Amino acid sequence: MNAPATFENLEVGFDVPALPGMAEADIQTPCLVLDLDALERNVEKMGQLARQMGVRHRVHGKMHKSVDVALLQEKLGGSCGVCCQKVSEAEVFARGGIKDVLVSNQVRDPAKIDRLARLPKLGARAICCVDDLANVADLSAAAARHGTQIECLVEIDCGAGRCGVTRTSDVVEIAKAIDAAEGLRFAGLQAYQGAMQHLDEYEDRKAKIDVAVAMVRDAVEALKAEGLECDIVGGGGTGSYYFEGNSGVYNELQCGSYAFMDADYGRILDQDGNRIDEGEWENALFILTSVMSHAKADKAIVDAGLKAQSVDSGLPVIFGRTDVEYVKCSDEHGVVADPDGRLKVNDKLRLVPGHCDPTCNVHDWYVGVRDGKVEVVWPVSARGKAY
Amino acid sequence: MNAPATFENLEVGFDVPALPGMAEADIQTPCLVLDLDALERNVEKMGQLARQMGVRHRVHGKMHKSVDVALLQEKLGGSCGVCCQKVSEAEVFARGGIKDVLVSNQVRDPAKIDRLARLPKLGARAICCVDDLANVADLSAAAARHGTQIECLVEIDCGAGRCGVTRTSDVVEIAKAIDAAEGLRFAGLQAYQGAMQHLDEYEDRKAKIDVAVAMVRDAVEALKAEGLECDIVGGGGTGSYYFEGNSGVYNELQCGSYAFMDADYGRILDQDGNRIDEGEWENALFILTSVMSHAKADKAIVDAGLKAQSVDSGLPVIFGRTDVEYVKCSDEHGVVADPDGRLKVNDKLRLVPGHCDPTCNVHDWYVGVRDGKVEVVWPVSARGKAY
Repeated sequence: MNAPATFENLEVGFDVPALPGMAEADIQTPCLVLDLDALERNVEKMGQLARQMGVRHRVHGKMHKSVDVALLQEKLGGSCGVCCQKVSEAEVFARGGIKDVLVSNQVRDPAKIDRLARLPKLGARAICCVDDLANVADLSAAAARHGTQIECLVEIDCGAGRCGVTRTSDVVEIAKAIDAAEGLRFAGLQAYQGAMQHLDEYEDRKAKIDVAVAMVRDAVEALKAEGLECDIVGGGGTGSYYFEGNSGVYNELQCGSYAFMDADYGRILDQDGNRIDEGEWENALFILTSVMSHAKADKAIVDAGLKAQSVDSGLPVIFGRTDVEYVKCSDEHGVVADPDGRLKVNDKLRLVPGHCDPTCNVHDWYVGVRDGKVEVVWPVSARGKAY
Repeated sequence: MNAPATFENLEVGFDVPALPGMAEADIQTPCLVLDLDALERNVEKMGQLARQMGVRHRVHGKMHKSVDVALLQEKLGGSCGVCCQKVSEAEVFARGGIKDVLVSNQVRDPAKIDRLARLPKLGARAICCVDDLANVADLSAAAARHGTQIECLVEIDCGAGRCGVTRTSDVVEIAKAIDAAEGLRFAGLQAYQGAMQHLDEYEDRKAKIDVAVAMVRDAVEALKAEGLECDIVGGGGTGSYYFEGNSGVYNELQCGSYAFMDADYGRILDQDGNRIDEGEWENALFILTSVMSHAKADKAIVDAGLKAQSVDSGLPVIFGRTDVEYVKCSDEHGVVADPDGRLKVNDKLRLVPGHCDPTCNVHDWYVGVRDGKVEVVWPVSARGKAY
């Protein structure tokens, strides 16, 4: 391919925002852009940190929903596998070549249980979470029916207030049922404290994880007394991984957002009181947006609104600019305050999304750039896989 | 097809939430469900109202992003065409057989302008909005290059504070430039007041539209004095259509949400002080969700979180239930307060989404049900078409 890549000869309706080889300036907006250098540095760093702490890192694929990013995390970050939240996501990762997949969630619907039981036929280890004795028989029957094995983690609710049991006696009871069930293997514990990840202060986060670690330690010991070893004790996110990783109890981290970063995570503070997006992790994910109207002198209208991002955790932040501010988001538009009239139509801005996970889930493509050029265009492989 | 439709013989990873003929109870969740009876009644009613007011209805396709729904609105509601917000959406509607497509937005990027100029080759009338004299030459050059015609509406910002000009003199200047440009046709005015649609009180909404109508009337008269007739004077939404429709100035409505309804629109009040979802319009769109964990006695965890909806306009409301309440939304989960323990695992609930447009945009399918059976499964044809 000697000629520069352009859209010119593509059919109308061919909807990729960019082609490899293009200049960054030619990318169609709004779309997701990955700074590949920053992404690779984040991925390598977390791999090193996990190795230093002596724990595995099972990267959270629900964040990026991308086989390509998961394979990069395996190659550069030494991740041991992927966790995700839906059976349909797990299928995408398994088909994409990830050999070790944890659905870090309950699977209760009969059709979904059946699909989970068939996951090993795609070449992947299939693991899921259980928080209800009644689930064990259904999972067992499906695994037996398909001649496969489902590995089960008992989920402990260690503060997130969603799924999971809270009493060690319940953990042990469910674990024993799993251990006794045909087609199932008791593989350990799931104990992710999601509710504390976004607390700004390091010490506040630490206090929450101290509680979680104590609960998990109690469960591990009670299980051991029953002769049940935990192959996996999983949890930990971008706001807490150092606590779980150094706990002596957890042996698998499940960080997701560290790889891309977002505005909401970026605001939390490390042990020294610094924002984690100023040193610990780099912003690697951006929504590229263009100015499409500047009919008012002091505001620019950009083409990234609610269909290009989720604002559940706040508005996006304009990367590298203090002179302009994204102040309002409607379905198709963003309003950017431009008091000094710095922007003009077709200017492009990089937005750091408020919340990366649900933002990635509305896009079909990641445009990976390096040195001002489009290097890769990756599908958001598991986009919309909500079943 | 005599055997009942099931998922049993489908390949792993075949991700439709339902098949026609299935019982509603077998639908995979989370997914979008359409009550076809309610949808058809909404569509027919708006068609009748527009006819009674003597105006056309150009349905807003950006809300549903579905060719099938747009064709239903044409057939049952007599709509004159579709408006949408992106060129890539317009391509989907044109390819799907809609013959009259308005991109009710600015088109500024050169590649997008080129695509817009090719839209008539797909068999559709191509219309877009202009709020900047500098845009006229670019649109004209593209239409001339492809030997097509782009029709242009001058956009008036009548209170929404986004795109559009505010002075009649600017309207006239841009209209004259369009009229003089090769390949372009001056087709009228775009004046949608989006900011007032969700004001609760009827009189508050009326006051805002009174201002808009006065601005638009002034522009229409000034254009007429220059010999420029407005084929289209478009605007009006679900919270205001009766004002524009009876204004004597507007001749095309652009309602979208009326067809599906959502929780945020449902709360606004009609002239008699009644919620518009209690008589004026029916809830036809639901997120079907299942209980996937009930490890705590007083709360159920459901499988529809931020990846299944947008919460920018508030949390979803559980349809037809006052005993349980959706109280918290995270990436993959919803927390449903269930103080009396009424719910059990795998129970299904219908959620009325807070905001229909960005919620539809995260899903791939609409499952249309009638009398407890799945009748149709329609793609969200323009999902993710953000370019």
